[in-house]
This record gives sequence, C-alpha cells and structure tokens, in this order.
Amino acid sequence: MNAFMDKDFLLDTECAKKLFHEYAENMPICDYHCHLSPKEIYENKQPEDITQLWLSGDHYKWRAMRSCGVDEEYCTGNASSKDKFIKFGETLQYCIGNPLYHWAHIELQKYFGIDTPLSAKTAGDIYERANEAIRNGDFRPQSLIVNSNVKIVCTTDDPIDTLEYHKLLKEVDSFSCKVLPSFRPDKALNINLAGFSEYIEALGKAADIKIESVDDVINALNKRAEYFNEVGCKVSDQAFDYVPFKECSREKLDKIFKKGLKGEELDQKDIDRYRTAIMLALGKKYNELGWAMEIHIGALRNNNTKMFEKLGPDVGFDSIDDHEIAQPLSRFLDTLCKEGNLPKTILFNLNDKDNVVLATMLGNFQSAETASKIQFGPAWWFLDTMDGMTAQLKTLGNLGVLGKFVGMETDSRSFTSYGRHDYFRRILCRLIGRWVEDGWYANDEEVLKEIICGISYDNAIKYFEF
Amino acid sequence: MNAFMDKDFLLDTECAKKLFHEYAENMPICDYHCHLSPKEIYENKQPEDITQLWLSGDHYKWRAMRSCGVDEEYCTGNASSKDKFIKFGETLQYCIGNPLYHWAHIELQKYFGIDTPLSAKTAGDIYERANEAIRNGDFRPQSLIVNSNVKIVCTTDDPIDTLEYHKLLKEVDSFSCKVLPSFRPDKALNINLAGFSEYIEALGKAADIKIESVDDVINALNKRAEYFNEVGCKVSDQAFDYVPFKECSREKLDKIFKKGLKGEELDQKDIDRYRTAIMLALGKKYNELGWAMEIHIGALRNNNTKMFEKLGPDVGFDSIDDHEIAQPLSRFLDTLCKEGNLPKTILFNLNDKDNVVLATMLGNFQSAETASKIQFGPAWWFLDTMDGMTAQLKTLGNLGVLGKFVGMETDSRSFTSYGRHDYFRRILCRLIGRWVEDGWYANDEEVLKEIICGISYDNAIKYFEF
Amino acid sequence: MNAFMDKDFLLDTECAKKLFHEYAENMPICDYHCHLSPKEIYENKQPEDITQLWLSGDHYKWRAMRSCGVDEEYCTGNASSKDKFIKFGETLQYCIGNPLYHWAHIELQKYFGIDTPLSAKTAGDIYERANEAIRNGDFRPQSLIVNSNVKIVCTTDDPIDTLEYHKLLKEVDSFSCKVLPSFRPDKALNINLAGFSEYIEALGKAADIKIESVDDVINALNKRAEYFNEVGCKVSDQAFDYVPFKECSREKLDKIFKKGLKGEELDQKDIDRYRTAIMLALGKKYNELGWAMEIHIGALRNNNTKMFEKLGPDVGFDSIDDHEIAQPLSRFLDTLCKEGNLPKTILFNLNDKDNVVLATMLGNFQSAETASKIQFGPAWWFLDTMDGMTAQLKTLGNLGVLGKFVGMETDSRSFTSYGRHDYFRRILCRLIGRWVEDGWYANDEEVLKEIICGISYDNAIKYFEF
Repeated sequence: MNAFMDKDFLLDTECAKKLFHEYAENMPICDYHCHLSPKEIYENKQPEDITQLWLSGDHYKWRAMRSCGVDEEYCTGNASSKDKFIKFGETLQYCIGNPLYHWAHIELQKYFGIDTPLSAKTAGDIYERANEAIRNGDFRPQSLIVNSNVKIVCTTDDPIDTLEYHKLLKEVDSFSCKVLPSFRPDKALNINLAGFSEYIEALGKAADIKIESVDDVINALNKRAEYFNEVGCKVSDQAFDYVPFKECSREKLDKIFKKGLKGEELDQKDIDRYRTAIMLALGKKYNELGWAMEIHIGALRNNNTKMFEKLGPDVGFDSIDDHEIAQPLSRFLDTLCKEGNLPKTILFNLNDKDNVVLATMLGNFQSAETASKIQFGPAWWFLDTMDGMTAQLKTLGNLGVLGKFVGMETDSRSFTSYGRHDYFRRILCRLIGRWVEDGWYANDEEVLKEIICGISYDNAIKYFEF
Repeated sequence: MNAFMDKDFLLDTECAKKLFHEYAENMPICDYHCHLSPKEIYENKQPEDITQLWLSGDHYKWRAMRSCGVDEEYCTGNASSKDKFIKFGETLQYCIGNPLYHWAHIELQKYFGIDTPLSAKTAGDIYERANEAIRNGDFRPQSLIVNSNVKIVCTTDDPIDTLEYHKLLKEVDSFSCKVLPSFRPDKALNINLAGFSEYIEALGKAADIKIESVDDVINALNKRAEYFNEVGCKVSDQAFDYVPFKECSREKLDKIFKKGLKGEELDQKDIDRYRTAIMLALGKKYNELGWAMEIHIGALRNNNTKMFEKLGPDVGFDSIDDHEIAQPLSRFLDTLCKEGNLPKTILFNLNDKDNVVLATMLGNFQSAETASKIQFGPAWWFLDTMDGMTAQLKTLGNLGVLGKFVGMETDSRSFTSYGRHDYFRRILCRLIGRWVEDGWYANDEEVLKEIICGISYDNAIKYFEF
Repeated sequence: MNAFMDKDFLLDTECAKKLFHEYAENMPICDYHCHLSPKEIYENKQPEDITQLWLSGDHYKWRAMRSCGVDEEYCTGNASSKDKFIKFGETLQYCIGNPLYHWAHIELQKYFGIDTPLSAKTAGDIYERANEAIRNGDFRPQSLIVNSNVKIVCTTDDPIDTLEYHKLLKEVDSFSCKVLPSFRPDKALNINLAGFSEYIEALGKAADIKIESVDDVINALNKRAEYFNEVGCKVSDQAFDYVPFKECSREKLDKIFKKGLKGEELDQKDIDRYRTAIMLALGKKYNELGWAMEIHIGALRNNNTKMFEKLGPDVGFDSIDDHEIAQPLSRFLDTLCKEGNLPKTILFNLNDKDNVVLATMLGNFQSAETASKIQFGPAWWFLDTMDGMTAQLKTLGNLGVLGKFVGMETDSRSFTSYGRHDYFRRILCRLIGRWVEDGWYANDEEVLKEIICGISYDNAIKYFEF
C-alpha cells in the first residue's frame, strides 16, 4: 500500500516520478484564468483563521457540505468558525473520489505542514494546528502567490472596471508576480436580463460614448478593450451556456437592441442575433490586439431560485448544461476566420460529451501564426478532477497535438488553490510516464522535458506572449 | 492468471478483498426498485427447470440470443426447455465483456453450486446439473429471497393496483422480507397513447372519484398514493424517455385533458403541459408522504413495431434515447423546490452522456433534511455493467458525495438476480480498495467500514426510512 | 520499462501475447471499407519517395502539422519532399497520445524496416533511409496490398462510376486480392447542394433513364446497384452528419425534387423528406441484393470556408457533429424492418456520445438471418485511436455480442495503412487477454481462438458473404 498522498502521490511509474520531480514540480506557474480579487491581492491581509481562508468563499466546499445534509448556517451562515470547520471535516471524509479531498490535503501539506488526513475524528485538532500555523506564519495573498512560484495571474474583470488595483499592484516592488486583467464582457451580451440598460449606461460612461446603437456598444467595448490592453490585458473571457450563432442586418439588430434597452421580452433568436453581432465584433478586436479569446461553454447557472434569491450567484447552485454546440461554434469561428479576424482562441467545455467536439473543432482553424492557435482548454470546474483532467489530456492527445497544449489554470477564487497546478502536473506526468514506461512513446529525455515543461509553463508564456 | 470468477472475482487489491469479505459481502440487501411480481412471491412456486427460471421472462437473455442469430422459437417461442437452454449456452460464450456472462456465472455458483463455465460445449451437462439442483433443492421465490439475505423488496405497481398480494405477504410469518409496493403512475401521464381514457376510467373507479378534470386526476392519484402509503409504500417511480417541462393555465390544461380523453391527437407541447401539471402535483404529494421520487430517464422503447405487435412491450426491443435533459429537469426540480414541495429524489439516466448532468444537478437542490436528499441513482439497465457501474460511482465521487450514496437495486424481473448486488459490491470495493491502496484516500478502517456498509445497505435504510 | 513499440507492443499480459501471436497476427485482412483508388491500384506505380507515399494525400498528417503551426506550404503546398518530411518529423514528436504517432512507427517498422523513433532529431536520417528502402524495394500498391495479407478490399464509389478499374483488376492474374466496389450514393441525396441537377443528369445517363421524378431517381439508382452487384459489390455506404427521417406523399416528394433540380432553396424538412424516401428505397434494394448497408453518422465537414475554397473537401478541415440521432435512426430502421426490407446494416458513429445509442439500437433489429445482422461499426476516423477502439469494443461487449463483431476496416486513402489492422488486433487481444488473465472470462482456448479469429477476419467473410 502506498503512503497516503506523499511526495509520489499519483506517480505510479519511475518515469512519472522522474518527469514530475526533475521537471514539472519546479516550473513556475502561469495562472492565465482565475477569479482572484485584485483588490484583495493589493490589500494583502493576513486571514484570521483557516475557516476564513477556506470556507468564506468556496462554493465547492459549501456544495459538498449541503450534500451531506449540513445546514446552511454552517456554509454561508453565522455559525462559528470552529463549528463550520468541524462540519467541513465531517463532510470531507465522505467525499471519497472527489477532488476537494485531494485539494484540501495538498493545501494542508503545502501551506500548513499538516500531513494528517482530515476527517470527523481529526477536524478539531487540525483546526487548532492550522490556526496556529496562520498565527505564526505569513498567509497574506501576495506571500501565498509568490511562495507558490506564480509569475502571472490573470483576473476576470468587467469592461467597465477601472482596473485601479491592477495599476496599484504594478507599483508594489516587493511583489514579483504580474497581475493582469482579463476582459469579460458577459454583461454587455445579456440583453435578456434585468439590469441590461443600466449596464449599457455604465458602459457608455466608462467609454465616454453615448450608446444608441449596436455599433455604439461595439465602439464602447473596443475602447474599453484598448484601455485594458494598456494595463497589460492579453486575454478575454466569455461564458456561454450554449453557443449562439445567428446573423442579421444592422437595421434589425438595432431594433432588437432597442427592445432590450426597454426591457421588452426578446425571443431566443433575437437574443442570439445580438450576441452574435457583438461576439463577431469582439473577436475581431481581440485579434487586432493579439489577445487570446477564452470561451467557457456549458454551465447551467442559478438552478435553485430560492437560494439565488437568498444568496445571489456563484454560491454553489450551478450545474452542467447539455446543448448541441458543434454547428454554431463552427459557424462562429469560420465567420471570423473567413475575414481574417479569428484571434487565438481557447475553447473550454463543462459537459464531457463535448470533449471530442471541441478537440476536433480546433484542427479546423489552426494556422501558421502560432503553434496550436486554437486550444482545447484544460478540464474546468466540474471536470477539474482526476478523471476529467485525464480525459481532457487523452482526448487532446488522441485528436490534436498534446505537446503544444497551454496547460492548466486554477479558475479559482482562493489564494491557496495553487495546489491544483501540482495536482494537474502529477496527472500529466502520470499519464505520459505510463505511456513511456509501456513503450508507447519514445524514451527521449530531451523531447519529454520540452513537452512536460511546455505544458507546465513554457507553452502558455509563448502562446499568450506574456 | 487469476482463477475464473472465484471468491476474489474483481477484487484486485488486498484492501478491496478486505473491504468486500469483511464488510460488503455480509450486509443484507435492500432492493428498493425491482419488477418482481408480488403474486409470484406469494404463490411461491418451485420452478420446473432452469429454463423456466432463467429464460421464461428475461429480455436480456433473449436479446443476446437474437444478436447471435438464434431464432425467436428458442427465445419466446415453443422450443423445448432443453433446446432453449442449449441455444443460450451457445450464445453466452460470445457474450465476452457482457454483464450477462458474469450474472449467469454468479447465479450458477450461488444458487446451483456449479463452477463450470457455461459454453456451447458445457451447456448440455450444465442443463442436467442445474435441473438436478432444482429437483433436490428449494428454488421457491421466498426461499431465494430469504437465502439471498434480502430484507426489503420494493415492487413496481400501478396506482389502480389493489396491492392484495402485498397485504397477503405481510401475513406470511415464515417470510422475513418486507415486500412493499412502489407507485408508478406512468399510465396516468400517457395522455397521448391508446387506452388513456379507459385507464382514467379505471383510476376513477379505484379512487372512487368521477374524473372530469385534471384536478380530478390529481385527486384520484393522491387518494391512491395514500392507499399505497397505508400498505407501506415509500417510493414512487417514473419513466421518461425525455424530461417534459411546460407550465400553463388550469383552463388550458383541462382542454388538453379533454382532447386526450377523446383520443384526439395532441401536439408534443400539450402532452408536456399535461405531464408537467401531473408531475408537479405528484411531487408535492410524495413530499407530503415522505416518499422518495425515482425518475428513470432515457429509454427509447418498442423500437421494433413488428415484434411489438407480436410480443408486446418489455421483451427486449428497447434502447437508449439521447435528448437534451438539463434545462427541463432543472426547471422541474426548481419549481417544486421553490414552493417547498420537492421530495427526496433519485435521478437515473440510461444514456451515459447524462452522467455529469445528473451528478451535478443533485447539488443544486440538496438540503439539511436528509444526507444527499437528491441522489444519483445506480447504473441502470443497459448501464448496469462493470463499466457503467464504475462510471456512475466515479462520476458521483467526482461531482457529489459518494459516501452518502444509497447504492444498488436490481431493477430485475428474476428471483435469482440478487447476484447483481454481489457484483455491484465487488465493483465498489475494487474501486475504493484501489484508491486506498494507491494512497489516494486515507486508510482509516472505521471510516471505510462506514462508507462500504453505508453504500451496501445502511444508507438506503436511513434514506428511505424503511 | 518496455522496449519502444516492439513485437509485444500493447500486449500487457501473457494471454494477450498468446492470442495475438498465435491467432490474430497471422489472419488475413478483409478491408471492407476504404477510400483507396482502384485506378491507382491498377496502375500500380512505385512511389518516388516517402513524402509522396505518406504526405501527398494524408489529411491526418496535414492536420497535425497545421496544429503545430507548420505553414500550408509544407502540407499541401510546393515545399520540397525533404522539407515536408522534416516538418512532419518535427510535428510527430509533439503528437504524444495520437494514433498518428503509432501508425507512423508501425509503418516505418513494417514497410521500411526502420525501428528508430521519428522526431525532429532523426527526421533527416529517416528520410534518407526510407527513400533508400523505396529505391531498393517494391512499394507498388499491389505489392503492398498482397504483402499485407489483404484478401478483400472494398473501395468507395459513386453510382455513376463505370467501375472499369475494378473490372480490369479482375484480369490481373498476379494480383490475388479481390478489389470490389462499394455503392455510395451521397450525391443523389444532396438535393440541397450546388451541382445536384447536373448529378441527376449524369445519373440518368449512366442508368439510361430519363429522370423526371423521385421514382425515376430510385429506378436509376436501383439499376446502377444491379450493375455494381454484377461487378461484385456487396456493400453500400452512406454518410450522414445527422440522421434524416421524415415521410410524406409521393406527390409532395416530386414537388420537392423539382425545386431541388431548379436549385431553389429547400427547408430542412423537405430535404429530409427527400432523403428519407431515397434511403428507404435504397435500403429495400440493398436487402434484395443481400448487401450490407453501412451508415457513417456524425461528421461535420468543411468547417473552414477559406480553406475549402482553396483546397476543396477531404483535406483536414472536418470535425465531429453532435445531433440527437436515436429517434430518427430507430424510425428509419423500423420502417424498413416492418416491411421486411431491412438489409444487413453497420452503424458507425463519429461522436463517442453515440456509442451507447448505436450499441443498443442493434439489439432492436437482430434476426435469425445472420449472426448480428445489425452491427456496431468499428471506431472510425477521429475515434480510430487506442481509446476510441477500446471504448467501441467495450461498449459492444457491454451492450451487444462482441464475439460476433465483423471487426476492423481502414477507412483509409493510403496503401501503407494496413498497420491499422495490426494496431486494432493488438488492442483487441490486450482487452480480451486482460479479461481472461483477471479471471473475468473462461480460459477456454478453443472459444477464444474462434472469437479472436472471428473478429480479425472470419466474421467479416461470413457476414458479407465474400
């Protein structure tokens, strides 16, 4: 029996151990997509206790606790720090097979020096030991980031954001990590949701443009993109539960837009027409700026109305959607490509049924501009598991060129989540190590080193041009 | 080379062997969903031969035989018992990788004491030996059930059923297993099928209600549900090839209902409106009664018209459908949840593309009432295989809380199918044993015992409140 | 560490080695579906160099190169043979996990006697050695085919084809392989595409029928099918990105057909009505002739308009579609079956989400005419990988009768692609060897031999009646 999650965790061949310990483990981290708060990084506050660090904003953990029948009081409610942690410890022992179980133990080891498995029995003791580590150590965001060997962090920001904390962070000499904004214009696309006209108003103000037409929206977004670019942005991000694609005339578009501004109900086709027009214009702009366009497909959000009304979005009531995506995605990318406007693009899927659709879509639009200009994004959110990551790597290997993959990002809201890069790299080395060990791939150390270091860090740096 | 299907079948680590032989193997069985006939259990007749026991009603076996080019004469036809069995033996040797192969050998070992692999060569001899075992042994339904250590059996019953055999079985002192009805109102939802008005008539009679409106249908079903509850029912069951969800006014509903009663053609939207109204009302009722609501999604039934006309339903001409289900399922559960009417719910999928959709849907609606109030049902029917069960366990592990899973049921029509629980438990112990052996989960015997015994039996007993 | 791709490549148990080396390896090849050119086989020209043999027509390789950022000049362009090969070598080392990597090395070993792994470092040297092997050896198509132990090749041909090269090949005494045509009437179904009326004109000419109605189309196709049959055809082939099924009156059909001939725009329903009518008629004809009907479902073709305009179809810009297929496919097969017109049928899927849909669809329509009359086709194109083939074999094992599977075809345009049969057989023996070794299937050598030889060759010969 192997020791529990020791230094060779997941590394089941000699080759895997070598690839991880000699190459992957020591590579820096490029976290090209996450939801960290630049304000919190700048303010750089020491957390009060492990509950604040782990349980104050982590919907993965709340979701697991609710699945064990734990009352909301211990998740987002007013229970004491200690009681919340104990409830989490009780929960975690039932999370067998869940990445939370591995993430939690990687973090306990890495940041707290605690090797004991967390369970109902040990939760009280671990709570004390972790808090002692916090009291005696430096758990401020900048320290956690630097100590995790992170060189690049791309946050997720609204086009109207002032980016003041990104600018302030550039001035902090003692902090060696680049914290760059990403451009996420979801709100400008949500013509069907409450608050759209207010958002458009705010966008106009931010861009200093009076918005009266779809072209005005595009001009305003373009202007904000240029501003983001000046502050160092290299990446945009878009979330779609499905993929809209429907073209129409400018005249019709403006009618749709006006209805949206008035809050009138729009049918799905009109929503898609508007979204298509904006996305095509944005794609063109991203390409001009040399940015990568990330598209996250397939979340079904805010399923529980009662809890949404109580707690708002992003608190653990989302799941996986299951639309057909191949045709509209193909037409969207092709329309940009025909006109020479297709930017570097990273496609992420949340439903694993789409793995093969995305991994083969890439190959339709590659070009000599960049190695693997169109990328299959790493397994994300619900797929960010041992099985999900392995499937993404294998699918990309089977259907594309794995050696040119830009690799992992955390997509996280937590400052201790860099252990997920460790987890990813172990899984990568396990897979490739096994292939080499079994004689399925040549044991050429130079090439293997390039591939492992590439997927761990180098490919992303080259691809995004950080 | 391992011995063929011996006591350590599927158990490939020391930990798996320990978990199975010390814990799982000896737990009783709670078969919370099956299609056994309460009448046959009550009548308790000794079968004539193994062909009657194995081949008189098992569409899995017929289907395999037809796939080998065996004539219908040997499946549902008039060939002799011996000839039918020989044809099955010839078929089975080609069923490499099929659960039938494992089920058959588990049953030969467990009930007949026969260790010889069944094939064309051995079929004649095994036929004789099995029949001798039947002649010299007790193969009556009650004995098979009790000897299989089954404590609970939930049959599948129409709301108009009198449940007389369930009542009679309660009086059989020598029979220690509880045989409880389940409420399966499919026919009340099939407004589009021939026989609907006759069924509504019969439902009205059973409930002693004159049915003239949708509210009357609901009242009648509720009344029958109360009757089922008195007889011990704790579970309802619903089969959907897709998931209907479309709300409308009561007035419109009654128009739809009247058209349905007259046998007029209804469009799909109207069928869905009617089904949605009934299901929302039933969900509320199930919640009031503290029942669990099982929903089986994704069968495409009666594909072969010629054979349907000859043999009727449920004889092996069904397959897997592939609709989008995430959005309507979310809206259905949310609508119940908003009003506080969501019962305990178990979601089963037949298409493995829906694994991630269901396993993440759960988490949207969990609550403090019960641990894992919303459950991801065990791999079912076509997915009830080594690979299918492993995928369900891993998906639930990755995306939910595996430790709170209610575990296996047989979904079977056969009295010797309890070997499927043995099969499931071996697969469970194999998976968890491997995780522990590889250092992926803490080797904490107390917790492991709780998890294994929980998934084998204890969780179901607590969840359903048997 | 295993040696790199040696004689026991993929064979990880003693049983797998035995099954492969004693049985599978030496079986002949029946390549019942490919895209080889009968003209090229007949003309039987020695290739100039390995670049001509490997890179002049292989969209798999171009696609990988483009994914590494290689300029089109080195794929379909005018770069020198040597430069093209070097770029391919540089690409291949990043294709870790891709079947191209294995195919290339199997071919280097099998046809060129080269054991060195191909990479950037070795490409120049391997280029020279491979060309020397070509200069000193016999790499003409007929020799490659015969030396690969191929007994049957079924090409893919348009109904209007004269089949002159198939006829000429029959006369070549020195060539022992049967090269048979397959009937692929895609163009007669593409009523919505440019060139339809010209095609119908040509079809009429080929069949000597004046085509003015849908019945005329059917008569012409039937006449051509009879001609194909005389030349030895046993197989038809159909490609669908989705599965059309919509019935209508003959009168309406003729109106649709006339619109199509005039090049007027048709809506999707009308396209489907026309296709359904033609496919139902063809299915009936195929059944009369005793042919097998192959249906390839799920390609999304010609995604990149710019490259399509430059290079045409089938050059590496296709990917995987994701429609719902279960219901229309069921209705299509059932409609043929009801009337006694369902031919032997092989269903191929390109999207792995459809594995379970197809593998269970088979069982609805089996019959006593032939063992596994309805077949689940081997993993194809993008799924023709280690993982894809394993999944197809397991899914068929789980849900159907693997022992009656007709096995592999290359679907290839290349004369050195017979290594894919070697690859497939290793994967087959690996899987079955593992099952036997683990005690999951009886170690009955006679039965295992029949299964392995059956899936490798014998089942196809019996099934197609070659």
